[in-house]
Amino acid sequence: MKYNYASRMANLNGTATREIFKLLGNPEIISFAGGNPAIECLPTERVKEITADITSSPDFARVLQYGLTAGFPELRALLADYVRTAGIEGAAVDNILVISGGQQGIDLVLKTFINPGDVILVENPTYLAFLQIANSYEAVCKGVDSGEEGLDLADLEAKIKKYRPKVLYCVPTFSNPTGRTYTAENRKAIAELTAKYGVVVIEDDPYSKLRFKGEYVPSMKSMDRAGNVIFVSSFSKIISPGNRTGVACAEPELIRKMEICKQGTDLHTPNLSQMITYEYLRRGYLEPDLKRAVEIYGRKKACMSDAIARYMPEEFECTDPDGGLFIWGRLPKGIDVLKIFPEAIERKVAYIQGSVFFAEPEGTENYIRLNYSYANDEQIDEGIKRLSGLFKEKIAALK
Amino acid sequence: MKYNYASRMANLNGTATREIFKLLGNPEIISFAGGNPAIECLPTERVKEITADITSSPDFARVLQYGLTAGFPELRALLADYVRTAGIEGAAVDNILVISGGQQGIDLVLKTFINPGDVILVENPTYLAFLQIANSYEAVCKGVDSGEEGLDLADLEAKIKKYRPKVLYCVPTFSNPTGRTYTAENRKAIAELTAKYGVVVIEDDPYSKLRFKGEYVPSMKSMDRAGNVIFVSSFSKIISPGNRTGVACAEPELIRKMEICKQGTDLHTPNLSQMITYEYLRRGYLEPDLKRAVEIYGRKKACMSDAIARYMPEEFECTDPDGGLFIWGRLPKGIDVLKIFPEAIERKVAYIQGSVFFAEPEGTENYIRLNYSYANDEQIDEGIKRLSGLFKEKIAALK
Repeated sequence: MKYNYASRMANLNGTATREIFKLLGNPEIISFAGGNPAIECLPTERVKEITADITSSPDFARVLQYGLTAGFPELRALLADYVRTAGIEGAAVDNILVISGGQQGIDLVLKTFINPGDVILVENPTYLAFLQIANSYEAVCKGVDSGEEGLDLADLEAKIKKYRPKVLYCVPTFSNPTGRTYTAENRKAIAELTAKYGVVVIEDDPYSKLRFKGEYVPSMKSMDRAGNVIFVSSFSKIISPGNRTGVACAEPELIRKMEICKQGTDLHTPNLSQMITYEYLRRGYLEPDLKRAVEIYGRKKACMSDAIARYMPEEFECTDPDGGLFIWGRLPKGIDVLKIFPEAIERKVAYIQGSVFFAEPEGTENYIRLNYSYANDEQIDEGIKRLSGLFKEKIAALK
Repeated sequence: MKYNYASRMANLNGTATREIFKLLGNPEIISFAGGNPAIECLPTERVKEITADITSSPDFARVLQYGLTAGFPELRALLADYVRTAGIEGAAVDNILVISGGQQGIDLVLKTFINPGDVILVENPTYLAFLQIANSYEAVCKGVDSGEEGLDLADLEAKIKKYRPKVLYCVPTFSNPTGRTYTAENRKAIAELTAKYGVVVIEDDPYSKLRFKGEYVPSMKSMDRAGNVIFVSSFSKIISPGNRTGVACAEPELIRKMEICKQGTDLHTPNLSQMITYEYLRRGYLEPDLKRAVEIYGRKKACMSDAIARYMPEEFECTDPDGGLFIWGRLPKGIDVLKIFPEAIERKVAYIQGSVFFAEPEGTENYIRLNYSYANDEQIDEGIKRLSGLFKEKIAALK
């Protein structure tokens, strides 16, 4: 039978990272492609202890039974407290929705707001999976320029006036893919500007706890006076990606809408996943584990920066993040990193082409995202060496 | 700020069961409203044993790390085998998608196929959460008449010709809400008719393993020659609802589309949930546990049927299912079960009004769904007695 798909399917293909993820069964390939936490940062012993306690509890049957869509009340209460670590004061239980990973939070916001054809503003470049989710709602994404301080405010206001967007999506701290962080002033200005024009902001914050250098910057949500910012965070990078838990924090009216949308997608986040996150936070494991993780990521990032300085051709430019998981690089115009990807795989090293992070990808074929959290120090050094060899050849061929 | 929601939100309210679920914190209320498995059927000791083994395994870190969107390969392989129990022979791994509960399977099919305004045919009456999910895609649902044998084939063909639907949704075994089962002949005829007209069928099968009487009937998917039937099943009623796992089985092309849709909604089903289901099935726990569960549900159903015979007014008519979790009842015209629901709650007994199960609910205010799986025998007897008292008063007042 020939199937008659929905129109949204025309623009939906597997995201580049997910597809590359499938190819990486080969352990010989050094991967800078994904966004996986370091294996040594995954709290295997803690989760073992926690699950043993949960399954031994006299009311464990409650965990196996249906739960509420918005999440366990005790987890929501704890998360209302937890968002203070992002500067959000006074959150109550009805400001909080438990989500099945940050990805679901984004999906639920778009489900709540987006009709086909609606415009969404995103940073140039932005998280590739966001563009995929936006495609699934047949939204039109338009890029806003950005720099070291954050979004270009003049460009933001101009694009708001021009496109009348419903939503602005951004990752203000350790952006994926650039690793850059918006200043506090930039955040405040964005919150005010979007409030003025009635634009809802998704503040996606999976990485802010992974800071190995520089000063904490409060979340944009903490500067939200109009109720237009929806804060979405994830425990994937700081507890476990496989556990699929996260938190959304917003006005109760919005949380209620997102809850209704969640009913139809997965009814509720699995209870054991919720309880693992609850107990992990309640027992105070996050702080010491983060301390260790941040040391590890800081070391890995330094290792990659050092290898880049040592091996990469001088034409290669890149960011120097204070946290998060990614370095963003640029090669000279004329080098198409997607085209030469098979040659990288031959040399047993993988990355993600930067073009997939742009709402309007024309002319961005020379950008590249490098992840430093997953590979070990030796692999990072060796992988960058291999890549450098390839890039040098390609640059030489340009001349 | 006044929010400008997507048009889909206009018809989305919390589903009746989810809302009542919230009210049932009061343990004095005997609830026939939900669809929860019996607490005594939840395999607390098995899951305790399984999670201890999983968390002790040397490659437990794999469970905490990101997983593939389609699910753990070993679980998919096992599920390809598992669907044989529904008569589906020869399924391979690429026919299988691991889903976060049956609800997600339905959602992913609609995401794959439905544009706003597309018509979906459903049984009269049908699963209320399906109507909710269909609303979220702005589909138009039209009801097909049904009876003891299954769908009315003449009405089905007439509605297909009239509405040119993209999808038919049905629960052929122990339907929610009626508890009725389509005959094998009826299934075969539906599979052929829908194939002829290019209609995709969602065969939702959460209950078929809960048979306490009568003969096994193979799934409609097992009779599918054209590749138009998508089989969706859930482990919620037979392992644990809180674990949120299920399986979809369809043509590889469709599984791939659903996988791409799943990337954007939750990336993947939590790994621990997947591994619990995998180990539970692999260790052969399902068969003995089902044997026990089916005895319990058979007893509870008999208990409810007996109480209905003993207490209910003769004007009350109801189904007599061979399995599943629900009895479907009808009161005389003129009794609006939603209107008198507050009086039922005063008498400390809850049910679901039948009207929410109809695509076109006009004139269905006298139907009622009663769940017998959750309450214990005494509560069932007492609850039906309380309801009968209320109904008798209302019927007397009609005269």
